[in-house]
Amino acid sequence: MKGKTISQIQLGDRASFQKTITETDVYLYAGITGDLNPAHINESYAKNTFFQGRIVHGILTSGLISAVLGTQLPGPGTIYISQDLKFHAPVRFADTIIAEVEAIEIVVEKNRVKFSTVCRNQNEEVVLSGIATVMPPK
Amino acid sequence: MKGKTISQIQLGDRASFQKTITETDVYLYAGITGDLNPAHINESYAKNTFFQGRIVHGILTSGLISAVLGTQLPGPGTIYISQDLKFHAPVRFADTIIAEVEAIEIVVEKNRVKFSTVCRNQNEEVVLSGIATVMPPK
Amino acid sequence: MKGKTISQIQLGDRASFQKTITETDVYLYAGITGDLNPAHINESYAKNTFFQGRIVHGILTSGLISAVLGTQLPGPGTIYISQDLKFHAPVRFADTIIAEVEAIEIVVEKNRVKFSTVCRNQNEEVVLSGIATVMPPK
Amino acid sequence: MKGKTISQIQLGDRASFQKTITETDVYLYAGITGDLNPAHINESYAKNTFFQGRIVHGILTSGLISAVLGTQLPGPGTIYISQDLKFHAPVRFADTIIAEVEAIEIVVEKNRVKFSTVCRNQNEEVVLSGIATVMPPK
Repeated sequence: MKGKTISQIQLGDRASFQKTITETDVYLYAGITGDLNPAHINESYAKNTFFQGRIVHGILTSGLISAVLGTQLPGPGTIYISQDLKFHAPVRFADTIIAEVEAIEIVVEKNRVKFSTVCRNQNEEVVLSGIATVMPPK
Repeated sequence: MKGKTISQIQLGDRASFQKTITETDVYLYAGITGDLNPAHINESYAKNTFFQGRIVHGILTSGLISAVLGTQLPGPGTIYISQDLKFHAPVRFADTIIAEVEAIEIVVEKNRVKFSTVCRNQNEEVVLSGIATVMPPK
Repeated sequence: MKGKTISQIQLGDRASFQKTITETDVYLYAGITGDLNPAHINESYAKNTFFQGRIVHGILTSGLISAVLGTQLPGPGTIYISQDLKFHAPVRFADTIIAEVEAIEIVVEKNRVKFSTVCRNQNEEVVLSGIATVMPPK
Repeated sequence: MKGKTISQIQLGDRASFQKTITETDVYLYAGITGDLNPAHINESYAKNTFFQGRIVHGILTSGLISAVLGTQLPGPGTIYISQDLKFHAPVRFADTIIAEVEAIEIVVEKNRVKFSTVCRNQNEEVVLSGIATVMPPK
Protein backbone atom coordinates (compact mmCIF):
# COMPACT_ATOMS: atom_id res chain seq x y z
CA MET A 1 0.00 0.00 0.00
CA LYS A 2 2.65 2.46 -1.10
CA GLY A 3 2.58 4.44 -4.31
CA LYS A 4 5.39 4.97 -6.76
CA THR A 5 8.45 6.92 -5.62
CA ILE A 6 9.84 9.59 -7.89
CA SER A 7 12.47 7.21 -9.28
CA GLN A 8 9.71 4.88 -10.42
CA ILE A 9 7.90 7.58 -12.43
CA GLN A 10 8.80 8.41 -16.04
CA LEU A 11 7.78 11.39 -18.14
CA GLY A 12 4.72 10.34 -20.10
CA ASP A 13 3.45 7.86 -17.49
CA ARG A 14 -0.33 7.87 -17.45
CA ALA A 15 -3.21 6.61 -15.34
CA SER A 16 -6.96 7.15 -15.40
CA PHE A 17 -10.24 6.46 -13.62
CA GLN A 18 -13.75 6.71 -14.96
CA LYS A 19 -17.24 6.78 -13.51
CA THR A 20 -20.75 7.70 -14.52
CA ILE A 21 -21.77 10.73 -12.46
CA THR A 22 -25.33 10.45 -11.17
CA GLU A 23 -27.99 12.64 -9.62
CA THR A 24 -27.18 10.84 -6.37
CA ASP A 25 -23.56 11.95 -6.56
CA VAL A 26 -24.58 15.55 -7.17
CA TYR A 27 -27.12 15.62 -4.36
CA LEU A 28 -24.79 14.09 -1.81
CA TYR A 29 -22.03 16.43 -2.92
CA ALA A 30 -24.35 19.40 -2.46
CA GLY A 31 -24.88 18.33 1.13
CA ILE A 32 -21.22 17.64 1.82
CA THR A 33 -20.01 20.99 0.51
CA GLY A 34 -23.01 23.21 1.11
CA ASP A 35 -23.02 24.13 -2.57
CA LEU A 36 -26.77 24.44 -3.02
CA ASN A 37 -26.47 26.48 -6.20
CA PRO A 38 -29.82 26.01 -7.97
CA ALA A 39 -27.93 25.14 -11.17
CA HIS A 40 -27.25 21.79 -9.50
CA ILE A 41 -30.28 21.01 -7.38
CA ASN A 42 -33.25 22.95 -8.80
CA GLU A 43 -34.62 21.65 -12.09
CA SER A 44 -37.34 24.32 -12.32
CA TYR A 45 -34.64 26.95 -12.21
CA ALA A 46 -32.07 25.07 -14.23
CA LYS A 47 -34.26 24.26 -17.22
CA ASN A 48 -34.48 27.98 -17.92
CA THR A 49 -30.74 28.55 -17.84
CA PHE A 50 -28.24 28.45 -20.69
CA PHE A 51 -27.55 24.78 -19.91
CA GLN A 52 -31.25 23.84 -19.97
CA GLY A 53 -31.10 21.53 -16.99
CA ARG A 54 -29.25 20.74 -13.80
CA ILE A 55 -25.52 20.21 -14.19
CA VAL A 56 -22.86 18.58 -12.05
CA HIS A 57 -20.72 20.81 -9.81
CA GLY A 58 -17.56 21.47 -11.84
CA ILE A 59 -15.43 20.97 -8.82
CA LEU A 60 -17.01 17.60 -8.04
CA THR A 61 -15.46 16.33 -11.26
CA SER A 62 -12.01 17.38 -10.05
CA GLY A 63 -12.32 14.72 -7.35
CA LEU A 64 -11.75 12.05 -9.99
CA ILE A 65 -8.32 13.57 -10.64
CA SER A 66 -7.49 13.30 -6.96
CA ALA A 67 -8.68 9.67 -7.10
CA VAL A 68 -6.13 8.86 -9.81
CA LEU A 69 -3.25 10.70 -8.12
CA GLY A 70 -3.97 9.26 -4.68
CA THR A 71 -4.70 5.66 -5.58
CA GLN A 72 -2.76 4.95 -8.79
CA LEU A 73 -0.12 7.41 -9.95
CA PRO A 74 1.81 8.11 -7.81
CA GLY A 75 -0.65 6.41 -5.39
CA PRO A 76 -0.80 6.09 -1.58
CA GLY A 77 1.57 8.35 0.31
CA THR A 78 1.38 11.14 -2.27
CA ILE A 79 1.14 14.69 -0.92
CA TYR A 80 -0.98 17.02 -3.03
CA ILE A 81 0.72 20.40 -3.42
CA SER A 82 -1.44 22.26 -5.91
CA GLN A 83 -4.05 21.86 -8.61
CA ASP A 84 -5.03 24.31 -11.33
CA LEU A 85 -8.43 23.76 -12.92
CA LYS A 86 -10.07 25.16 -16.04
CA PHE A 87 -13.75 24.41 -16.54
CA HIS A 88 -14.41 23.97 -20.26
CA ALA A 89 -17.87 22.45 -20.55
CA PRO A 90 -20.68 21.38 -18.25
CA VAL A 91 -21.01 17.82 -16.99
CA ARG A 92 -24.58 16.60 -17.12
CA PHE A 93 -26.26 13.98 -14.95
CA ALA A 94 -25.44 10.48 -16.27
CA ASP A 95 -22.33 11.60 -18.13
CA THR A 96 -19.45 9.16 -17.86
CA ILE A 97 -16.26 11.04 -17.05
CA ILE A 98 -12.73 9.78 -17.46
CA ALA A 99 -10.01 11.59 -15.53
CA GLU A 100 -6.52 11.08 -16.93
CA VAL A 101 -3.18 12.24 -15.56
CA GLU A 102 0.18 12.28 -17.36
CA ALA A 103 3.57 13.04 -15.85
CA ILE A 104 4.95 16.15 -17.61
CA GLU A 105 7.71 17.36 -15.28
CA ILE A 106 9.85 15.52 -12.74
CA VAL A 107 12.07 17.44 -10.30
CA VAL A 108 13.98 14.79 -8.40
CA GLU A 109 15.88 17.09 -6.04
CA LYS A 110 12.63 18.63 -4.77
CA ASN A 111 10.70 15.31 -5.00
CA ARG A 112 8.02 17.01 -7.07
CA VAL A 113 6.14 15.79 -10.12
CA LYS A 114 3.78 17.78 -12.33
CA PHE A 115 0.94 16.02 -14.07
CA SER A 116 -1.34 17.31 -16.78
CA THR A 117 -4.88 16.48 -15.66
CA VAL A 118 -7.76 16.20 -18.08
CA CYS A 119 -11.37 15.07 -17.66
CA ARG A 120 -13.38 14.07 -20.73
CA ASN A 121 -16.97 12.94 -21.11
CA GLN A 122 -18.28 9.94 -23.06
CA ASN A 123 -18.14 12.01 -26.27
CA GLU A 124 -14.41 12.70 -25.84
CA GLU A 125 -15.18 16.33 -25.05
CA VAL A 126 -12.78 17.95 -22.57
CA VAL A 127 -14.81 19.20 -19.61
CA LEU A 128 -11.97 20.05 -17.24
CA SER A 129 -8.21 20.48 -17.63
CA GLY A 130 -5.32 21.61 -15.48
CA ILE A 131 -2.02 20.86 -13.85
CA ALA A 132 -1.39 19.02 -10.60
CA THR A 133 1.82 19.25 -8.56
CA VAL A 134 2.45 16.47 -6.07
CA MET A 135 5.17 14.95 -3.90
CA PRO A 136 5.33 11.18 -4.46
CA PRO A 137 5.93 8.97 -1.42
CA LYS A 138 9.59 8.59 -0.40
CA MET B 1 -32.62 33.63 -7.48
CA LYS B 2 -30.11 35.60 -9.46
CA GLY B 3 -26.65 36.52 -8.28
CA LYS B 4 -24.90 39.85 -8.52
CA THR B 5 -24.03 41.18 -11.96
CA ILE B 6 -20.58 42.60 -12.52
CA SER B 7 -21.81 46.15 -11.98
CA GLN B 8 -22.97 45.16 -8.50
CA ILE B 9 -19.59 43.82 -7.43
CA GLN B 10 -16.84 46.03 -5.95
CA LEU B 11 -13.18 45.26 -5.42
CA GLY B 12 -12.83 44.00 -1.86
CA ASP B 13 -16.31 42.50 -1.66
CA ARG B 14 -16.25 39.38 0.48
CA ALA B 15 -18.41 36.41 1.33
CA SER B 16 -17.86 33.19 3.23
CA PHE B 17 -19.35 29.86 4.23
CA GLN B 18 -18.30 27.54 7.00
CA LYS B 19 -18.97 23.93 7.92
CA THR B 20 -17.60 21.24 10.17
CA ILE B 21 -16.29 18.45 7.96
CA THR B 22 -17.19 15.04 9.32
CA GLU B 23 -16.17 11.45 8.82
CA THR B 24 -19.51 11.05 7.05
CA ASP B 25 -18.60 13.76 4.56
CA VAL B 26 -15.27 12.10 3.83
CA TYR B 27 -16.74 8.63 3.43
CA LEU B 28 -19.50 9.78 1.11
CA TYR B 29 -17.02 11.84 -0.89
CA ALA B 30 -14.78 8.79 -1.30
CA GLY B 31 -17.67 6.96 -2.90
CA ILE B 32 -18.73 9.89 -5.11
CA THR B 33 -15.27 10.42 -6.53
CA GLY B 34 -13.78 6.94 -6.28
CA ASP B 35 -10.95 8.38 -4.19
CA LEU B 36 -10.30 5.44 -1.85
CA ASN B 37 -6.82 6.64 -0.94
CA PRO B 38 -6.08 4.92 2.41
CA ALA B 39 -5.07 8.29 3.84
CA HIS B 40 -8.80 9.03 3.95
CA ILE B 41 -10.51 5.72 4.70
CA ASN B 42 -8.01 3.46 6.49
CA GLU B 43 -7.12 4.38 10.06
CA SER B 44 -4.67 1.47 10.51
CA TYR B 45 -2.68 2.83 7.57
CA ALA B 46 -3.17 6.51 8.31
CA LYS B 47 -2.07 6.45 11.94
CA ASN B 48 1.41 5.47 10.73
CA THR B 49 1.67 8.31 8.23
CA PHE B 50 3.12 11.77 8.71
CA PHE B 51 -0.37 13.07 9.56
CA GLN B 52 -0.97 10.35 12.20
CA GLY B 53 -4.57 9.69 11.24
CA ARG B 54 -7.11 9.88 8.47
CA ILE B 55 -7.42 13.28 6.80
CA VAL B 56 -10.04 14.93 4.61
CA HIS B 57 -9.55 14.85 0.84
CA GLY B 58 -7.93 18.21 0.07
CA ILE B 59 -10.09 18.71 -2.93
CA LEU B 60 -13.26 18.09 -0.93
CA THR B 61 -12.51 21.31 0.93
CA SER B 62 -12.42 23.24 -2.34
CA GLY B 63 -16.13 22.53 -2.70
CA LEU B 64 -16.79 25.09 0.02
CA ILE B 65 -15.27 27.76 -2.23
CA SER B 66 -17.60 26.76 -5.04
CA ALA B 67 -20.45 26.98 -2.53
CA VAL B 68 -19.66 30.63 -1.79
CA LEU B 69 -19.19 31.61 -5.43
CA GLY B 70 -22.31 29.82 -6.63
CA THR B 71 -24.72 30.78 -3.88
CA GLN B 72 -23.53 34.16 -2.52
CA LEU B 73 -20.93 36.11 -4.44
CA PRO B 74 -21.63 36.43 -7.29
CA GLY B 75 -24.34 33.78 -6.67
CA PRO B 76 -26.76 31.90 -8.96
CA GLY B 77 -26.07 32.25 -12.66
CA THR B 78 -22.31 32.49 -12.18
CA ILE B 79 -20.18 30.53 -14.64
CA TYR B 80 -17.02 29.07 -13.12
CA ILE B 81 -14.04 29.59 -15.48
CA SER B 82 -11.05 28.45 -13.47
CA GLN B 83 -9.78 27.73 -9.99
CA ASP B 84 -6.19 27.47 -8.79
CA LEU B 85 -5.66 25.62 -5.53
CA LYS B 86 -2.69 25.33 -3.18
CA PHE B 87 -2.94 22.78 -0.38
CA HIS B 88 -1.15 24.16 2.70
CA ALA B 89 -2.16 21.92 5.59
CA PRO B 90 -4.28 18.84 6.17
CA VAL B 91 -7.91 19.06 7.21
CA ARG B 92 -8.76 16.57 9.91
CA PHE B 93 -12.11 14.94 10.67
CA ALA B 94 -14.26 17.36 12.72
CA ASP B 95 -12.32 20.46 11.68
CA THR B 96 -14.53 23.46 11.01
CA ILE B 97 -13.53 25.11 7.76
CA ILE B 98 -14.39 28.61 6.64
CA ALA B 99 -14.08 29.37 2.94
CA GLU B 100 -13.79 33.05 2.12
CA VAL B 101 -13.69 34.77 -1.26
CA GLU B 102 -12.71 38.38 -2.00
CA ALA B 103 -13.02 40.21 -5.31
CA ILE B 104 -9.52 41.20 -6.42
CA GLU B 105 -9.93 41.99 -10.13
CA ILE B 106 -12.94 43.09 -12.16
CA VAL B 107 -12.82 43.15 -15.98
CA VAL B 108 -16.14 44.62 -17.06
CA GLU B 109 -15.65 44.32 -20.82
CA LYS B 110 -15.04 40.55 -20.54
CA ASN B 111 -17.56 40.13 -17.68
CA ARG B 112 -14.92 38.42 -15.59
CA VAL B 113 -14.12 38.70 -11.90
CA LYS B 114 -11.20 37.20 -10.04
CA PHE B 115 -11.54 36.26 -6.40
CA SER B 116 -8.89 35.30 -3.93
CA THR B 117 -10.14 32.14 -2.24
CA VAL B 118 -8.92 31.00 1.16
CA CYS B 119 -9.99 28.18 3.47
CA ARG B 120 -9.02 28.30 7.14
CA ASN B 121 -9.64 25.87 9.98
CA GLN B 122 -10.98 26.66 13.47
CA ASN B 123 -7.47 27.69 14.54
CA GLU B 124 -7.23 30.33 11.79
CA GLU B 125 -4.68 28.19 9.97
CA VAL B 126 -4.82 28.47 6.18
CA VAL B 127 -5.44 25.00 4.76
CA LEU B 128 -6.15 25.94 1.16
CA SER B 129 -5.68 29.06 -0.95
CA GLY B 130 -6.02 30.06 -4.55
CA ILE B 131 -7.65 32.22 -7.18
CA ALA B 132 -11.03 31.76 -8.83
CA THR B 133 -12.09 33.34 -12.12
CA VAL B 134 -15.81 33.53 -12.80
CA MET B 135 -18.37 35.19 -15.07
CA PRO B 136 -21.13 36.76 -12.98
CA PRO B 137 -24.70 36.48 -14.29
CA LYS B 138 -25.71 39.10 -16.87
CA MET C 1 -37.37 -6.51 20.66
CA LYS C 2 -36.45 -10.16 20.84
CA GLY C 3 -36.75 -12.63 17.98
CA LYS C 4 -38.15 -16.14 18.06
CA THR C 5 -36.34 -18.76 20.12
CA ILE C 6 -35.71 -22.14 18.54
CA SER C 7 -38.78 -23.62 20.23
CA GLN C 8 -40.93 -21.02 18.50
CA ILE C 9 -39.70 -21.91 15.01
CA GLN C 10 -41.25 -24.71 12.90
CA LEU C 11 -39.93 -26.34 9.76
CA GLY C 12 -41.47 -24.51 6.82
CA ASP C 13 -41.79 -21.17 8.61
CA ARG C 14 -41.25 -18.34 6.16
CA ALA C 15 -40.62 -14.63 6.11
CA SER C 16 -39.70 -12.12 3.44
CA PHE C 17 -38.72 -8.52 2.72
CA GLN C 18 -38.82 -6.68 -0.55
CA LYS C 19 -37.35 -3.45 -1.88
CA THR C 20 -36.74 -1.72 -5.17
CA ILE C 21 -32.98 -1.39 -5.62
CA THR C 22 -32.02 2.00 -6.98
CA GLU C 23 -29.05 3.66 -8.58
CA THR C 24 -28.65 5.49 -5.28
CA ASP C 25 -28.36 2.18 -3.40
CA VAL C 26 -25.71 0.95 -5.81
CA TYR C 27 -23.68 4.15 -5.70
CA LEU C 28 -23.71 4.35 -1.91
CA TYR C 29 -22.85 0.67 -1.68
CA ALA C 30 -19.86 1.20 -3.99
CA GLY C 31 -18.52 3.78 -1.57
CA ILE C 32 -19.21 1.72 1.55
CA THR C 33 -17.44 -1.37 0.24
CA GLY C 34 -14.89 0.16 -2.13
CA ASP C 35 -16.33 -1.95 -4.94
CA LEU C 36 -15.84 0.45 -7.86
CA ASN C 37 -16.12 -2.31 -10.45
CA PRO C 38 -17.08 -0.49 -13.67
CA ALA C 39 -19.92 -2.98 -14.16
CA HIS C 40 -21.69 -1.05 -11.41
CA ILE C 41 -20.64 2.58 -11.81
CA ASN C 42 -19.61 3.11 -15.44
CA GLU C 43 -22.38 3.12 -18.01
CA SER C 44 -20.03 3.70 -20.97
CA TYR C 45 -18.22 0.51 -20.03
CA ALA C 46 -21.25 -1.47 -18.92
CA LYS C 47 -23.35 -0.92 -22.03
CA ASN C 48 -20.75 -2.88 -23.99
CA THR C 49 -20.76 -5.84 -21.61
CA PHE C 50 -22.86 -9.01 -21.77
CA PHE C 51 -25.42 -7.38 -19.45
CA GLN C 52 -25.72 -4.24 -21.63
CA GLY C 53 -25.79 -1.79 -18.76
CA ARG C 54 -24.82 -1.21 -15.16
CA ILE C 55 -25.95 -3.90 -12.74
CA VAL C 56 -26.35 -4.08 -8.99
CA HIS C 57 -23.52 -5.62 -6.93
CA GLY C 58 -24.64 -9.24 -6.44
CA ILE C 59 -23.57 -9.20 -2.86
CA LEU C 60 -25.59 -6.08 -2.14
CA THR C 61 -28.72 -8.15 -2.77
CA SER C 62 -27.65 -10.63 -0.11
CA GLY C 63 -28.17 -7.89 2.45
CA LEU C 64 -31.93 -8.31 2.04
CA ILE C 65 -31.58 -11.88 3.32
CA SER C 66 -29.74 -10.64 6.39
CA ALA C 67 -32.55 -8.12 6.84
CA VAL C 68 -35.16 -10.89 7.03
CA LEU C 69 -33.12 -13.08 9.37
CA GLY C 70 -32.15 -10.25 11.68
CA THR C 71 -35.46 -8.43 11.93
CA GLN C 72 -38.18 -11.06 11.37
CA LEU C 73 -37.25 -14.74 11.43
CA PRO C 74 -35.72 -15.47 13.85
CA GLY C 75 -35.34 -11.67 14.45
CA PRO C 76 -33.33 -9.61 16.95
CA GLY C 77 -30.77 -11.53 18.97
CA THR C 78 -30.02 -13.96 16.13
CA ILE C 79 -26.37 -14.79 15.56
CA TYR C 80 -25.44 -15.32 11.91
CA ILE C 81 -23.18 -18.38 11.53
CA SER C 82 -22.85 -18.83 7.80
CA GLN C 83 -24.38 -17.98 4.44
CA ASP C 84 -23.86 -19.71 1.11
CA LEU C 85 -24.76 -17.67 -1.96
CA LYS C 86 -25.25 -18.60 -5.62
CA PHE C 87 -25.61 -15.74 -8.08
CA HIS C 88 -28.04 -16.80 -10.83
CA ALA C 89 -28.95 -13.66 -12.73
CA PRO C 90 -28.05 -9.97 -12.65
CA VAL C 91 -30.10 -7.44 -10.73
CA ARG C 92 -30.66 -4.27 -12.69
CA PHE C 93 -31.24 -0.74 -11.40
CA ALA C 94 -34.92 -0.34 -10.42
CA ASP C 95 -35.55 -4.07 -10.05
CA THR C 96 -37.75 -4.95 -7.09
CA ILE C 97 -36.21 -7.82 -5.16
CA ILE C 98 -37.98 -10.05 -2.67
CA ALA C 99 -35.80 -12.01 -0.27
CA GLU C 100 -37.49 -15.02 1.28
CA VAL C 101 -36.22 -17.40 3.95
CA GLU C 102 -37.71 -20.75 4.95
CA ALA C 103 -36.69 -22.92 7.89
CA ILE C 104 -35.43 -26.25 6.52
CA GLU C 105 -33.50 -27.76 9.43
CA ILE C 106 -33.78 -27.27 13.17
CA VAL C 107 -31.13 -28.67 15.54
CA VAL C 108 -32.42 -27.90 19.02
CA GLU C 109 -29.47 -29.26 21.01
CA LYS C 110 -27.05 -26.98 19.13
CA ASN C 111 -29.58 -24.12 18.92
CA ARG C 112 -29.06 -23.92 15.17
CA VAL C 113 -31.53 -23.41 12.36
CA LYS C 114 -30.90 -23.64 8.65
CA PHE C 115 -32.93 -21.53 6.24
CA SER C 116 -33.15 -21.72 2.50
CA THR C 117 -32.68 -18.18 1.23
CA VAL C 118 -33.93 -17.05 -2.16
CA CYS C 119 -34.06 -13.63 -3.84
CA ARG C 120 -36.37 -13.11 -6.80
CA ASN C 121 -36.98 -10.10 -9.01
CA GLN C 122 -40.33 -8.61 -10.03
CA ASN C 123 -40.60 -11.21 -12.81
CA GLU C 124 -40.32 -14.12 -10.35
CA GLU C 125 -36.84 -14.89 -11.67
CA VAL C 126 -34.43 -16.25 -9.06
CA VAL C 127 -31.42 -13.95 -8.89
CA LEU C 128 -29.75 -15.33 -5.78
CA SER C 129 -30.17 -18.51 -3.72
CA GLY C 130 -28.41 -20.18 -0.83
CA ILE C 131 -28.52 -21.51 2.69
CA ALA C 132 -28.18 -19.57 5.93
CA THR C 133 -27.28 -21.09 9.29
CA VAL C 134 -28.14 -19.06 12.38
CA MET C 135 -28.46 -19.32 16.14
CA PRO C 136 -31.82 -17.91 17.25
CA PRO C 137 -31.91 -15.88 20.47
CA LYS C 138 -32.15 -17.91 23.69
CA MET D 1 -10.28 -1.80 -18.00
CA LYS D 2 -10.24 -5.58 -18.29
CA GLY D 3 -9.29 -7.97 -15.54
CA LYS D 4 -7.01 -10.98 -15.75
CA THR D 5 -8.07 -13.88 -17.94
CA ILE D 6 -7.75 -17.40 -16.56
CA SER D 7 -4.42 -17.91 -18.32
CA GLN D 8 -3.04 -14.91 -16.44
CA ILE D 9 -3.96 -16.29 -13.01
CA GLN D 10 -1.70 -18.65 -11.06
CA LEU D 11 -2.49 -20.76 -8.00
CA GLY D 12 -1.46 -18.72 -4.98
CA ASP D 13 -2.09 -15.33 -6.59
CA ARG D 14 -3.35 -12.88 -3.99
CA ALA D 15 -4.95 -9.45 -3.76
CA SER D 16 -6.47 -7.43 -0.96
CA PHE D 17 -8.33 -4.26 -0.05
CA GLN D 18 -8.68 -2.60 3.33
CA LYS D 19 -10.89 0.04 4.84
CA THR D 20 -11.94 1.35 8.22
CA ILE D 21 -15.66 0.60 8.63
CA THR D 22 -17.53 3.52 10.17
CA GLU D 23 -20.89 4.24 11.76
CA THR D 24 -21.71 6.05 8.51
CA ASP D 25 -21.11 2.89 6.50
CA VAL D 26 -23.35 0.86 8.81
CA TYR D 27 -26.17 3.39 8.82
CA LEU D 28 -26.19 3.81 5.05
CA TYR D 29 -26.02 0.04 4.63
CA ALA D 30 -29.01 -0.36 6.94
CA GLY D 31 -31.00 1.92 4.66
CA ILE D 32 -29.82 0.28 1.45
CA THR D 33 -30.67 -3.26 2.56
CA GLY D 34 -33.50 -2.66 5.02
CA ASP D 35 -31.52 -4.51 7.68
CA LEU D 36 -32.64 -2.47 10.67
CA ASN D 37 -31.65 -5.14 13.17
CA PRO D 38 -31.21 -3.24 16.47
CA ALA D 39 -27.83 -4.93 16.91
CA HIS D 40 -26.62 -2.50 14.23
CA ILE D 41 -28.58 0.71 14.74
CA ASN D 42 -29.80 0.80 18.35
CA GLU D 43 -27.15 1.46 20.97
CA SER D 44 -29.60 1.29 23.89
CA TYR D 45 -30.48 -2.23 22.83
CA ALA D 46 -27.01 -3.26 21.70
CA LYS D 47 -25.15 -2.29 24.86
CA ASN D 48 -27.13 -4.95 26.72
CA THR D 49 -26.32 -7.72 24.25
CA PHE D 50 -23.46 -10.21 24.31
CA PHE D 51 -21.42 -7.86 22.07
CA GLN D 52 -21.98 -4.86 24.41
CA GLY D 53 -22.51 -2.37 21.61
CA ARG D 54 -23.61 -1.93 18.03
CA ILE D 55 -21.79 -4.11 15.52
CA VAL D 56 -21.34 -3.97 11.75
CA HIS D 57 -23.63 -6.12 9.59
CA GLY D 58 -21.62 -9.28 8.93
CA ILE D 59 -22.69 -9.31 5.36
CA LEU D 60 -21.58 -5.70 4.82
CA THR D 61 -18.02 -6.91 5.36
CA SER D 62 -18.41 -9.44 2.56
CA GLY D 63 -18.67 -6.50 0.15
CA LEU D 64 -14.93 -5.91 0.56
CA ILE D 65 -14.34 -9.37 -0.89
CA SER D 66 -16.44 -8.48 -3.92
CA ALA D 67 -14.40 -5.28 -4.22
CA VAL D 68 -11.16 -7.26 -4.53
CA LEU D 69 -12.58 -9.80 -6.98
CA GLY D 70 -14.28 -7.21 -9.17
CA THR D 71 -11.58 -4.55 -9.28
CA GLN D 72 -8.26 -6.39 -8.82
CA LEU D 73 -8.18 -10.17 -9.10
CA PRO D 74 -9.49 -11.18 -11.56
CA GLY D 75 -10.87 -7.61 -11.96
CA PRO D 76 -13.36 -6.02 -14.40
CA GLY D 77 -15.34 -8.46 -16.49
CA THR D 78 -15.41 -11.14 -13.77
CA ILE D 79 -18.70 -12.97 -13.27
CA TYR D 80 -19.44 -13.92 -9.68
CA ILE D 81 -20.79 -17.48 -9.47
CA SER D 82 -20.96 -18.22 -5.77
CA GLN D 83 -19.68 -17.16 -2.37
CA ASP D 84 -19.71 -19.13 0.87
CA LEU D 85 -19.36 -17.10 4.04
CA LYS D 86 -18.63 -18.06 7.64
CA PHE D 87 -19.00 -15.33 10.26
CA HIS D 88 -16.36 -15.85 12.95
CA ALA D 89 -16.31 -12.70 15.02
CA PRO D 90 -18.13 -9.38 15.14
CA VAL D 91 -16.83 -6.28 13.37
CA ARG D 92 -17.12 -3.20 15.52
CA PHE D 93 -17.49 0.41 14.42
CA ALA D 94 -14.06 1.86 13.51
CA ASP D 95 -12.47 -1.55 12.95
CA THR D 96 -10.14 -1.63 9.94
CA ILE D 97 -10.88 -4.69 7.85
CA ILE D 98 -8.62 -6.24 5.25
CA ALA D 99 -10.23 -8.58 2.73
CA GLU D 100 -7.81 -10.94 1.03
CA VAL D 101 -8.41 -13.43 -1.76
CA GLU D 102 -6.09 -16.21 -2.92
CA ALA D 103 -6.51 -18.43 -5.99
CA ILE D 104 -6.85 -22.03 -4.78
CA GLU D 105 -8.33 -23.86 -7.78
CA ILE D 106 -8.21 -23.11 -11.51
CA VAL D 107 -10.41 -25.04 -13.94
CA VAL D 108 -9.41 -23.79 -17.36
CA GLU D 109 -11.91 -25.81 -19.42
CA LYS D 110 -14.85 -24.36 -17.46
CA ASN D 111 -13.17 -20.91 -17.08
CA ARG D 112 -13.70 -21.06 -13.34
CA VAL D 113 -11.41 -20.03 -10.50
CA LYS D 114 -11.93 -20.61 -6.79
CA PHE D 115 -10.51 -18.17 -4.29
CA SER D 116 -10.21 -18.49 -0.57
CA THR D 117 -11.61 -15.28 0.89
CA VAL D 118 -10.69 -14.07 4.35
CA CYS D 119 -11.44 -10.83 6.20
CA ARG D 120 -9.33 -9.86 9.21
CA ASN D 121 -9.51 -6.91 11.58
CA GLN D 122 -6.66 -4.65 12.73
CA ASN D 123 -5.71 -7.26 15.36
CA GLU D 124 -5.23 -9.98 12.73
CA GLU D 125 -8.37 -11.72 13.97
CA VAL D 126 -10.35 -13.53 11.27
CA VAL D 127 -13.87 -12.10 11.21
CA LEU D 128 -15.14 -13.72 8.01
CA SER D 129 -13.92 -16.55 5.80
CA GLY D 130 -15.18 -18.47 2.83
CA ILE D 131 -14.75 -19.53 -0.77
CA ALA D 132 -15.61 -17.57 -3.91
CA THR D 133 -16.12 -19.11 -7.35
CA VAL D 134 -15.85 -16.76 -10.31
CA MET D 135 -15.49 -16.73 -14.07
CA PRO D 136 -12.63 -14.42 -15.08
CA PRO D 137 -13.11 -12.26 -18.19
CA LYS D 138 -12.40 -14.02 -21.50
